[in-house]
Amino acid sequence: MQTLLINAAAILTVSTDGANSKRGADMRDLGILEDHALLIEDGKIADFIPSVSVNKSNFEQVIDLQGKTILPGLIDCHTHSVFAGSRADEFCMKLAGATYEDIARAGGGIRVTTEATRAASAEELLNLTEKRINYFVSLGVTSVEIKSGYGLNYDEEIKILRVIKSLQAQTPVDLIPTFLGAHIIPHEYSHRRDEYISLLTDHLIPFVGQHGLAKYCDVFCEETAYSAQETDHLFKCAIKHGLIPKIHTEQFHSVGGLETALANNAVSVDHLEVLDVSQIESIAKSNTTAVLLPGVSFFLKHLYAPARLLIDFGALVALATDFNPGSSHIPNLHLIMALGALQMGMTIEETIATVTINAANAIGLEKVTGSLEPGKQADLAVLDTDNYKDLLYTIGQNLNCMTIKKGKVIYQNTGFHQ
Amino acid sequence: MQTLLINAAAILTVSTDGANSKRGADMRDLGILEDHALLIEDGKIADFIPSVSVNKSNFEQVIDLQGKTILPGLIDCHTHSVFAGSRADEFCMKLAGATYEDIARAGGGIRVTTEATRAASAEELLNLTEKRINYFVSLGVTSVEIKSGYGLNYDEEIKILRVIKSLQAQTPVDLIPTFLGAHIIPHEYSHRRDEYISLLTDHLIPFVGQHGLAKYCDVFCEETAYSAQETDHLFKCAIKHGLIPKIHTEQFHSVGGLETALANNAVSVDHLEVLDVSQIESIAKSNTTAVLLPGVSFFLKHLYAPARLLIDFGALVALATDFNPGSSHIPNLHLIMALGALQMGMTIEETIATVTINAANAIGLEKVTGSLEPGKQADLAVLDTDNYKDLLYTIGQNLNCMTIKKGKVIYQNTGFHQ
Repeated sequence: MQTLLINAAAILTVSTDGANSKRGADMRDLGILEDHALLIEDGKIADFIPSVSVNKSNFEQVIDLQGKTILPGLIDCHTHSVFAGSRADEFCMKLAGATYEDIARAGGGIRVTTEATRAASAEELLNLTEKRINYFVSLGVTSVEIKSGYGLNYDEEIKILRVIKSLQAQTPVDLIPTFLGAHIIPHEYSHRRDEYISLLTDHLIPFVGQHGLAKYCDVFCEETAYSAQETDHLFKCAIKHGLIPKIHTEQFHSVGGLETALANNAVSVDHLEVLDVSQIESIAKSNTTAVLLPGVSFFLKHLYAPARLLIDFGALVALATDFNPGSSHIPNLHLIMALGALQMGMTIEETIATVTINAANAIGLEKVTGSLEPGKQADLAVLDTDNYKDLLYTIGQNLNCMTIKKGKVIYQNTGFHQ
Repeated sequence: MQTLLINAAAILTVSTDGANSKRGADMRDLGILEDHALLIEDGKIADFIPSVSVNKSNFEQVIDLQGKTILPGLIDCHTHSVFAGSRADEFCMKLAGATYEDIARAGGGIRVTTEATRAASAEELLNLTEKRINYFVSLGVTSVEIKSGYGLNYDEEIKILRVIKSLQAQTPVDLIPTFLGAHIIPHEYSHRRDEYISLLTDHLIPFVGQHGLAKYCDVFCEETAYSAQETDHLFKCAIKHGLIPKIHTEQFHSVGGLETALANNAVSVDHLEVLDVSQIESIAKSNTTAVLLPGVSFFLKHLYAPARLLIDFGALVALATDFNPGSSHIPNLHLIMALGALQMGMTIEETIATVTINAANAIGLEKVTGSLEPGKQADLAVLDTDNYKDLLYTIGQNLNCMTIKKGKVIYQNTGFHQ
C-alpha cells in the first residue's frame, strides 16, 4: 500500500543523519523540506520526492495537504495515564490556600488515586485510558509511555500493566509500558518498607520481566519515597530481569538519585527541578535523556528544571506531560511545549526536538519513529498552518488537523480549529 | 418556544441577587443548584424547576444533560479579534533571545499587523474573525468584546468597525464593539501626534458615535502611546459623542491613566500590571471593572496584575484573553482562567465569576447575560463533567461540549473531549 502526501507547505523531518537524538545547536535544525512530497510504503517512510517531479497518477492513495505542515508524530515519553478517580477537589483546595496537611486531613493525595484505581475494574481503567489516548492522538501524538504505580501491591500493579497491554491490542498508538511499583511506599507498608521492597524485587519485578509486561522499571527517588540505596537495589534487580532503569529524581531534593540512575545506565532521568551545575555536566556527558516536566512546575507552582542550561551544556533533553491526577493534570503536549518556551527559555525549534526524536530516545523508539527518515514508521502530525511556529504561537488552540500512524490516518479534524 | 434542560449534575447560576457583579467573598459563591431543571422560554431563562416535579411531556424540547454541568455562557470582555497577518516569526525571534530593537529592525511589531490589516479586504477580515469567534464558541463563549485599533487612520478604523457590525449580522454571539483609534500614535503621525489626535476628536469619534459603530472608546495610556492629558481629552470627546470610556493602563508604567479613567467613569480599566496599593483602593471604591489579562503576562514573560489584592480589597475583577497577534496570541479563555488561578492566586470559583457576571459588567451586558437568572438571556456553556472544578483542573483540554445562545444550541461536540 502506497500513500503520497503532497502540497504540504513544509515537511519538518527533524532529521538526525543517523544519530539517535539531538543535542545543543542541532536541536534548532528541524531539517525542513519545502516543495517536496512524502511517500509512504507499507506504513513506512519510503522517500521525499521533489514536488515538480511527482506524477500523482502513479500512486495508490494521494492526500493533498495544501497549506499544511507535516511533522513527526509527537511522543509523550512520561505519563501516568492509567488511573481512576479525580483530584479536582484537592486542586481546588490548594488554589484556595490549603496546605499539604489540610489536604492529607481531608483524605487527599496519592492515596485517593490508589484507592480509586484499585477499586476500578480492568475494563473501567481501559476505557478511561483509551479516552485519554484518543485525546493525545487529536493533538498529533503517536507514541505514549505509560507507567503503573497506582496499584502498589502485587495484583493491582499487574492489573495496570495488563490494562496497558490490552489497550495496545486495540489502539494503533505505540504504548510503552513502564513498571513504577516503586512510586511511593504504600500506606500499608509505611512501617515495614523493606517488606514492600522485597515484594518488588522478589516477586513483582521478576514477574513483570518474565511476562514482558514492561520495558522499563522506574523509581521515585526522593526524601518521601525511595532512597538512593534502595533505588540502586531496585535497579540492579530490574536489570537482572531485563528491565531498563528510568527514574523520577531531583524533583524536590537531591538524595543521590541522579548519580544512581546514571551509574545504572538509566535510559532517562526525569524531573530534575533542583539540579546543580556539576549534575548538569554529568547528564550532558551521558547518553541518558533528561526528561523535563514543566506541567508539574506550572500545576504545583514549583521550580522549573534548568532546561536552558541543560541544552547549552549539551544534554539530551526531552519534554513530556507527566499527565497524572495529582501533580500535572495537563494532557496537552502542545501546552507543555509552550511552557518549555515561555517558562523555561527554550526556542520553538528546541521544543519540537524535545517531543519528537529526543522523546523517542527516552523510550527506546529512536530507531523507528521520532523523525521522518526513510525506513522509519510513517508517524505524522499535520498542522493546519503553513508555518510550524504557529504550533506554539497559537497557545491553547489545537492546530493539529490530522494524525497518521504507520501510514494510516487515525485522526482527522475537518471542522474548525479546536 | 420552550426548551427544558434536565438531568444536569449541577447548574452554576452565578446568581447575583439583582446586583450587577460580584466582589470579594461573594465571588466564591457560584449559586449552585443541584437536582434542578432549567426552563428556557423564547430564548430567555424562565425558571429553575426541582427535578422531582418535572413532567417532561409538558415541554416542547427536552435536552438531557445527564452528568454534565451548566454554567453561564462565558464572556471574553477584552479582545482585538479583527486583524490580519501573523507575528509567529516575531514571537519565535523573541523566544530565541531577540530584543525589542532586533524585532524593530526586522520589521516586526504592531506595524506588521497594521499593514496586514489595512491590506486585507473587509471580507477577508470578516472571514478571519468569524473563524476566531467560532473557536471561542467551541469553548462556551457567548459574548465577545472586539476592539478596532489596527487601522489607525480614518478609512481603516471605520473598515474594522464595519467588519464587526457585518459579523454581528451573521453570528448569534453578542459582539460588543470598542473604538480603539487611540491604540498607538500611527507611524505616519509620529512627528505630528496632535494632528492624529485631532483626526480622532474631530472626525473619527464623532462619526463612530453618530453611526453607532462602537459602544466604547478605548485609549492605550502609556509612555509609548498616549499621555494622561491626551487620554482625558479623548475621553471627554468620546463621552460627548455617546461613547463610554475604557482604558489600557498601568501595563508597563503609571502615567496617570488609571486616575484619568476613574475620573471619567470608565466602565473598565484594563491591564493593571503595575498598580500600587492606593490605586488598588481607588479601583475597589469605584464601580469600574478591573479587567486583568494574564495571557499577556504569560506571552510576554511580564508581571502579572495583583489579582489577589484587587479581590481582597473588594475591587470588581474580570479576566479576558486580550486575544491579539502581538502580546497575547492565546484565544483560549479556559487557559486564561488557569493562569488566573495558578499565576495570580485566584480560586476556581473566583475565576468563573471573572469570566461570567463580572466580564458582563465590563461590557455593559450585566442586565442581560453573565448569570443564570429568570429574565436573562439563556446563554449557556455545558461542561462534559459532573464537577465544575474540572474546567480548571483539566488544563489544556476543552471540556465544553455544548454552547447555547439565547436558547439555541450553537455548538455541540459529540465526539471525545477536544
